[in-house]
This record gives sequence, C-alpha cells and structure tokens, in this order.
Amino acid sequence: MTSTTGQSSGTTPQSLRRIVLARRPEGVPVEEDFRLETVPVTPPGPGEVLVRAVHLSLDPWVRGAMTGRNLGHPPIHPGDLVPGRSIAQVVDTGAWVVAETGWQEYATVPADSLKPVTVPPGVPRTAVLGALGTPGLTAYAAINRHLRPVIGDTVVISSATGAVGGMAGQLARLAGARTVALVGGKAKVELATEYFGYAAAVDRHDPEWAEALAAACPDGVHGYLHMAGGEVLRGVANLLATHARVSLCGLPEHSNEVGGETVLPAGAVMRSRATVHGMVVYDHFDLRPEFAARVGRLLTEGRVRLLEDEHHGLESTPRAFGRLMAGLNTGKAIVHLDPDTSDN
Amino acid sequence: MTSTTGQSSGTTPQSLRRIVLARRPEGVPVEEDFRLETVPVTPPGPGEVLVRAVHLSLDPWVRGAMTGRNLGHPPIHPGDLVPGRSIAQVVDTGAWVVAETGWQEYATVPADSLKPVTVPPGVPRTAVLGALGTPGLTAYAAINRHLRPVIGDTVVISSATGAVGGMAGQLARLAGARTVALVGGKAKVELATEYFGYAAAVDRHDPEWAEALAAACPDGVHGYLHMAGGEVLRGVANLLATHARVSLCGLPEHSNEVGGETVLPAGAVMRSRATVHGMVVYDHFDLRPEFAARVGRLLTEGRVRLLEDEHHGLESTPRAFGRLMAGLNTGKAIVHLDPDTSDN
Repeated sequence: MTSTTGQSSGTTPQSLRRIVLARRPEGVPVEEDFRLETVPVTPPGPGEVLVRAVHLSLDPWVRGAMTGRNLGHPPIHPGDLVPGRSIAQVVDTGAWVVAETGWQEYATVPADSLKPVTVPPGVPRTAVLGALGTPGLTAYAAINRHLRPVIGDTVVISSATGAVGGMAGQLARLAGARTVALVGGKAKVELATEYFGYAAAVDRHDPEWAEALAAACPDGVHGYLHMAGGEVLRGVANLLATHARVSLCGLPEHSNEVGGETVLPAGAVMRSRATVHGMVVYDHFDLRPEFAARVGRLLTEGRVRLLEDEHHGLESTPRAFGRLMAGLNTGKAIVHLDPDTSDN
Repeated sequence: MTSTTGQSSGTTPQSLRRIVLARRPEGVPVEEDFRLETVPVTPPGPGEVLVRAVHLSLDPWVRGAMTGRNLGHPPIHPGDLVPGRSIAQVVDTGAWVVAETGWQEYATVPADSLKPVTVPPGVPRTAVLGALGTPGLTAYAAINRHLRPVIGDTVVISSATGAVGGMAGQLARLAGARTVALVGGKAKVELATEYFGYAAAVDRHDPEWAEALAAACPDGVHGYLHMAGGEVLRGVANLLATHARVSLCGLPEHSNEVGGETVLPAGAVMRSRATVHGMVVYDHFDLRPEFAARVGRLLTEGRVRLLEDEHHGLESTPRAFGRLMAGLNTGKAIVHLDPDTSDN
C-alpha cells in the first residue's frame, strides 16, 4: 500500500457551492428535486479541518435516506445538504483523505473523521470509493459470508455491472463458480460478459428474460445476489437448486419507492431448502482489513477489474444520481468536481 | 434403550380391512374422500413378512402426497391404499416393529424394511411415531440447526401444541429461550402454557393476534418456526429482531391447498438481517442417532413431555385425519387399531 500525499491545495475560499434537497423525490430522482446554492464557508473550529472535495461518490443508499429508509443515516429533509462521501484534500496540508463531505465543493469536518487514502500499486485513487470501498465490501461479504460459492456452482448476480454487482460477479468467478449476469438493458449484456467475465448475461427488460435465465442455468441457481425488483426475485426463486443461498442486498422499495412490496415465495424456499440472508453491509465492517488486503491484491494483479461511471462538475451531480437510481450507470458512479484531478 | 418383544400375535388372517383414497380431497379432507374396504391378505413372498398394524401414525405429509406435493413420497391416486407408518407386530414372531403399513390392519412388507421398536425406560412405545420419530426429529433439527436459540432469545413456535411444535417449544425452552406459542383456538392457549411450558401463548384466530404477539415479544422475535398460513408469517416477520432466524417448516399450500401462496416480505428480512431456512426433515436424517439418544434421555427424565391425540379403530382414521389437517388435534395423532393394546 502507498499513501498518497500532496501539496497544500491553495488558499481558503470564502464561499462554496453545494447541492441541497429541494423536495422529497417521487420514484427515480430528477434534477428538480435538487437545488444548487452558494453559501459561506464555515471556518474550522477546534478539532476541525477544511477539506476540498475532489471525487464525489454517488451511492443508492442516499436515495433511501431521502425517505428515511436507510439504516445507517438519519432522514434527509428538503433544505438539507445531500450526504455523500468524497476523496478530498485537506486545504492546509494537501493530504488526500476520504471524508464525509456531502455534495459540496468544500466541507468543514472533524479531523478525526478523516481516513487517509491508501491504494495498492497501480490502482487509481478513486477505487477507495468503489471496488475498495463500501460497494466492494458489500460484494465481498455477500459472496464470502452468504453465497459461499464452490467450484461448479452457478451464481446469478442482479445489477451485475454496477458497483456491487460487478465486483460480486468477479469474486464468484474467482471462487470457481459459473456466473450469470442479470442486467437492465441490452447494452450491458456485452459489458457483463466481455468486461466482467460473466459466462452468460440476460437482459431483465427482455419479456422472455425468465426463460433465458433458465436456459443459462441448466443446473439451477446455487447462489443469488438480489438487488432488483420483486418480479426478478420471483423468477430466480423458481430456479433455485437444492440448498441454494440467496442474499437480499437491495430492494426497490428501499430506494426509489417504485413498484410494490418485494416478496419471496416461501414454497420455492422450502422446495429448494434454500437459505435466505438479509444483507446490510454495516454488519460486515469487521471484514474490512481482510477485504482491503485481498481485493487490493486482486486489483493490482489485474485479476479483478474496476469500472467507473464518470461525471464532471458539481452541477452534473443531480442528473448523474438520477441515472444511477434509474439503473443507467455502468460501474461505480463518481463525480469529478475538479477538472484538474479528474484523471486521478 | 430396551427392545420390546412379544409372543406370536396369532393365526394368519384371510382378509384385512383397509382405507383407500376415494377421491382427491379439496382443502381439508372429509370422510367421503376415503373408502373402507375388505381385501384378501397377500401371502408373504420370499423376504417378506406379514405384520399386524397396532398403532397407526397420522401425518400431514400424507395430505401433500394426495396432490403430488410431497418430496418424499410419490403421488397417491384414488383407489390407492393411503400410506402411513405403524407400530406393528410381526404375525409369526410377535416382535414389535415400525413398518410402513399404510392405513390397514395387516400388511405384507419386506422384512428388511422393518425397524425394531426401541424406547428408553418409562417411555411409551408410541413415542417412536412422534416425539422419538419424524416429528420429533423435525423439531430437533429445526431448533438445533436453524433457529439455534441462545439464553434469553425469544422463540415463537406456530402449531405450537402439535407433534412438531410441542417438541420444538420444549427444546427451545431447555436451550434457555423464552418461548411463545402461536396456537389455533382458545382451548390450546392453556395447553401451551400449562402442559408444554411456553411463557406465553397467542390464539391466531383472535382478530388481534398480531398485537397480542407483539406484546408477548417485547424484545422482538429471535427465532421463528413456521408451520401456519401466510398471514401468520407476515405478522411474525414484522417482529423479527436483528439477526433473527426463521425456519419454514410447513405451508398450507403444500398440505390442504387452502389459502393463497405463502410469501415472505423481503423488506422485513433485510431490515432484521434475518436468515431464513427452507426446512425439510429428509435433509437431517444424519441427526437421528444423536436425536434419539438426547431426546430419549429427556423423555425418561421427564424434562420433555409427550402429548398424543388418540383415536380408536381403523374406521375412525378418516375423521381423525380430517381433524389433524384442520388443526384440531392436540399432540401427535395416533389411531389405536387394536383395543387390547391401546394403552401401550
């Protein structure tokens, strides 16, 4: 691991631009749900530092917090700064850190809340927001603790080219499983097989997706990572092999509040004698050191690949977030706030 | 353990009475779904013996087999002998055995399919059909492998005074859990608390049962054994504690085909980070020796109690089976076919 440091990132600004929630979104967020405003910079108090946000992470849990449905963050109300994690530079020292800045250019934060940015050789700094961050840990915990694939198992991943799914599919493949991607849209089918190495990929927008998935899983489904709608869960449940494992990792009603309640057919669970786990990454933070070491090494060796859905400029954030929540992103969604550092 | 033996049980009969399926039942079976008939005894061929059924076990899986929904038995068609297990005596030797006789007075069966009846001191012979048989093993496996209660957990058992539930509740209590019974009908509330030792019991026919269950589980539900309808599963799911375990052990659509499809709300599983297991006893036969030794000892010591729902005479079998499938039984349903041996 190498710690990245830098020079002082310049003089202290007097004001900053930030994005606040304008109104509670309905369904997939749109640009009008947010408002860009300019406010004075809060001078750091004792124990605080001013950081400049450089690479802003966009994450689905933020949508849940907008309606009070996130376990790890209090509800966000109209007028509130939208929360979010960034790779940032401490203004006074230039040190690169991970900070909970929210969607703004500068943030005054407790000095002891900062984590140094450490990435293994050959890995871009932004990996700490995706493959080496919470999405990667989610994938690592779901695969190693819930799905536990063994050689020859068939593992199905939904949202298979997203920040969590892309990593989960690669880890399951490295564990010896035959991996099958469920993706939203034709364009992602090739991405899934060519870039992420899935053995097969099925577009869940295809009306015959369930038949296509069954054809792609002739031995049934031994492991399933669920981050899609209820109709997908039902379709996969019908294909579960004996003693299958299912990890429930994301539900539409927890994020966009679209669609009905997601339910799991109990008969399919009994028939397959499956084990179904409710997956929340906060339960798996004990895995962080092991995860960072192992996945970091896989990244350095090129055995797992990163994919980032890149956007530029704070003003592009609402639209980029809407794309993420509509499932239009490919890979980890990141907004580069500073054009000088957009290439890491 | 003592092996019970006896004298020759008399001369070989020429004919026997048996009960066949008259038609495929709809919902809870009624007497008209069955037919009593008298047929000649099949003389034993090479490797076969004639046994006299004495205590006939009535089991819910038989209802599933009538509609081809049982994993362990082929479908039963009109005209077929209804399958079932008995405690029987070999006609030639008087030896007590467990045999797959079906619902009839005598059966010609392969000699190597018989198991000797062995019960620990002070335990009635019929225990091998219930507490020391498949229902007891189901309870033992569900508690020890799926729900795994620890001291202070709250464990909810549905069908709590039945052959499986009565044993499961007692085993969970012995493991240090606070046990709460879900029963069908007011009469079973007292049976659950006074006889089986549940800390509380709730009648699920009470319109306010969900509120009553919530009041009985102030710390939430850490373990739940499900053998009831979908509305019960949904109500309990709302009360699951963090990292709860749920064992799906019986569904109405697999037995009586009444009610709609049972579904589990995925949101409740995620919120509680629960683990849900599909439970089929055939997966747990490896536990048999351990189960027989441990539960046998608990029975001898009087630390777990038996309860039998006793009926007399082959002709009472259809009605007794209807009661079982309507949930009107209390304890293990048994038909004593021979008045001389009804008291074990």
